[in-house]
Amino acid sequence: MSTTDTPVDAHHRPTVALTLGDPAGIGPELVARLLHRPRTTERARVLVLAARAELEAAYRAAGVPPLPVGADGAPGTVVLLDDGTPPAQVAPGRTSAEAGARALHQLDRAVGLVREGRADAIVFAPLNKTSLHLAGMVEEDELRWFASRLGHSGPTSELNVLDGLWTARVTSHIPLSAVAGKVTAERVEAITTLLHEALRDAGHEPRLGVCALNPHNGENGAFGREEIDQIRPGVERARARGIDVSGPFPSDTIFLAARRGDFNGIVTMFHDQGQIAMKLIGFSGGVTVQGGLPVPIATPAHGTAFDIVGRGVADPTSTINAFDIAVSTATAALTRATTTPDRRPAP
Amino acid sequence: MSTTDTPVDAHHRPTVALTLGDPAGIGPELVARLLHRPRTTERARVLVLAARAELEAAYRAAGVPPLPVGADGAPGTVVLLDDGTPPAQVAPGRTSAEAGARALHQLDRAVGLVREGRADAIVFAPLNKTSLHLAGMVEEDELRWFASRLGHSGPTSELNVLDGLWTARVTSHIPLSAVAGKVTAERVEAITTLLHEALRDAGHEPRLGVCALNPHNGENGAFGREEIDQIRPGVERARARGIDVSGPFPSDTIFLAARRGDFNGIVTMFHDQGQIAMKLIGFSGGVTVQGGLPVPIATPAHGTAFDIVGRGVADPTSTINAFDIAVSTATAALTRATTTPDRRPAP
Repeated sequence: MSTTDTPVDAHHRPTVALTLGDPAGIGPELVARLLHRPRTTERARVLVLAARAELEAAYRAAGVPPLPVGADGAPGTVVLLDDGTPPAQVAPGRTSAEAGARALHQLDRAVGLVREGRADAIVFAPLNKTSLHLAGMVEEDELRWFASRLGHSGPTSELNVLDGLWTARVTSHIPLSAVAGKVTAERVEAITTLLHEALRDAGHEPRLGVCALNPHNGENGAFGREEIDQIRPGVERARARGIDVSGPFPSDTIFLAARRGDFNGIVTMFHDQGQIAMKLIGFSGGVTVQGGLPVPIATPAHGTAFDIVGRGVADPTSTINAFDIAVSTATAALTRATTTPDRRPAP
Repeated sequence: MSTTDTPVDAHHRPTVALTLGDPAGIGPELVARLLHRPRTTERARVLVLAARAELEAAYRAAGVPPLPVGADGAPGTVVLLDDGTPPAQVAPGRTSAEAGARALHQLDRAVGLVREGRADAIVFAPLNKTSLHLAGMVEEDELRWFASRLGHSGPTSELNVLDGLWTARVTSHIPLSAVAGKVTAERVEAITTLLHEALRDAGHEPRLGVCALNPHNGENGAFGREEIDQIRPGVERARARGIDVSGPFPSDTIFLAARRGDFNGIVTMFHDQGQIAMKLIGFSGGVTVQGGLPVPIATPAHGTAFDIVGRGVADPTSTINAFDIAVSTATAALTRATTTPDRRPAP
């Protein structure tokens, strides 16, 4: 995209803060493969938050040549933000407080860069939840951790993206017994709006469908009234705001319609409603977007794959997809804001 | 299987009561195609519960030649049980009380044959729930209707069968808000046992997996305690009875394991948990078995397909599969009982 005549940050080329994820997992090698793809640094100025030794080990594990490190992050180079803290001494493929602490440390720095206006997006390689909790993370999931660190109190939803299909959740990591009580028209409207904006901001034309909560779409109230009392009113309010959304539809057929192409976004009522479907539709290439936050934050949908660490066989497709979604969204935001490339100070 | 030297009911050839389902749907033509397959009447003595005019119209709609009608139900023939009640005067592709009443009338007769020991299994073509309710059916679904008609009060579960994978449900047609309260160790054990017996009786070696209720399998109780307090104890009790069963497993990955072949039976906690998965795994050939009843009763998983009625394009695969499951189960029961073919009086 850029040439020697063009400043590197022209054409709204965003700045992405990139972390290696859990150091005991496949994250570092995935990042190395992501960086090795020419399009990665062509599309964005990439700030790698890692120690030099960690990044070098990542290239070796992936079996790809290192990219030159430069201060300006020109295409073909990365900006290495090594803050001098020592890499974690961890055994590959094992959970530990040390591994979790190292992953959190770099994510914390990434959030700092966003807060200071020095990064437009965050992409992180897979984390290990056990290690994060061993390291003292108290939030239930990364989404709440980011929201807390970013001081964001609006609606959020983990978004799952696979083969062009995005899902958002009205409820997430809570007991199934608590789900129905949290399905409100307000929340349905908010999450529908959030999904609409996330798709639009990533460059898609949103066409949304909303799941029912109860079997057979509630069968006109015989199997539950949430469809009538909450979900449909929420959908109608979102539609009144100009959003292309319909539903509720029975949750056992809406994903067939989506797979046919009728929708590119599905609002689910609870975690497994969408996850059962998404994992059957496909297992590779999936991305998790931390939806509703003020900047795009994305990560591969898969985990740390402890069984294949360091063997150089980890598939970077999801990491590449996560990066591309974050960059598309950040680029569109910069374009809308018509900011100049010089707006942000060098890191 | 049978020869001229062999009585028609030798080798435990069971008797199947077969109904045309909703007369305004594709049921009659599916039945005609099922009968046209030579193996159908080779494997079972088939009692068709219909008016002669209805059956003749079904053959015409399907574009297949009629089978000879005989009193003994020898291979290549059917026994027509026309009780002289007039066919419903219904418009194809429309719901009506008349259509529902006709379907229920013949099902009622089929249950009567079972109660009198004159049929070993029931197979019925698709029904239309709206027409059934217009006709005055008060039960929530066919399963409860059959249980009530058969005077059966033990545990039951609709079983969904697709490509060799069977699912049973701990709860079914109830609001999602009521599900968690009904997930008890007793019910998990009972439905696991029911599914085990259904698979075994249909000639399979059961290998069962049980779904979690909560996201991430409850995450050690953080997202709900049903896995710890109810599901696992229920699974352990079933295992103590010699059943090959494991779980609970996260519901968003268990179906991937089943698709890989790790399980041929899955116990789900609620309706859409299994149905989301089954409809994504495949849409054609699926069968619904009324599980837990004293005789095998099966029907195609699909509906009346009002949009293609009478065009001769309806796919009989599910109906054939339903028939074959009912016949295999009935044959095995006859073999176990080592009854003589003369046990049952002629209809």
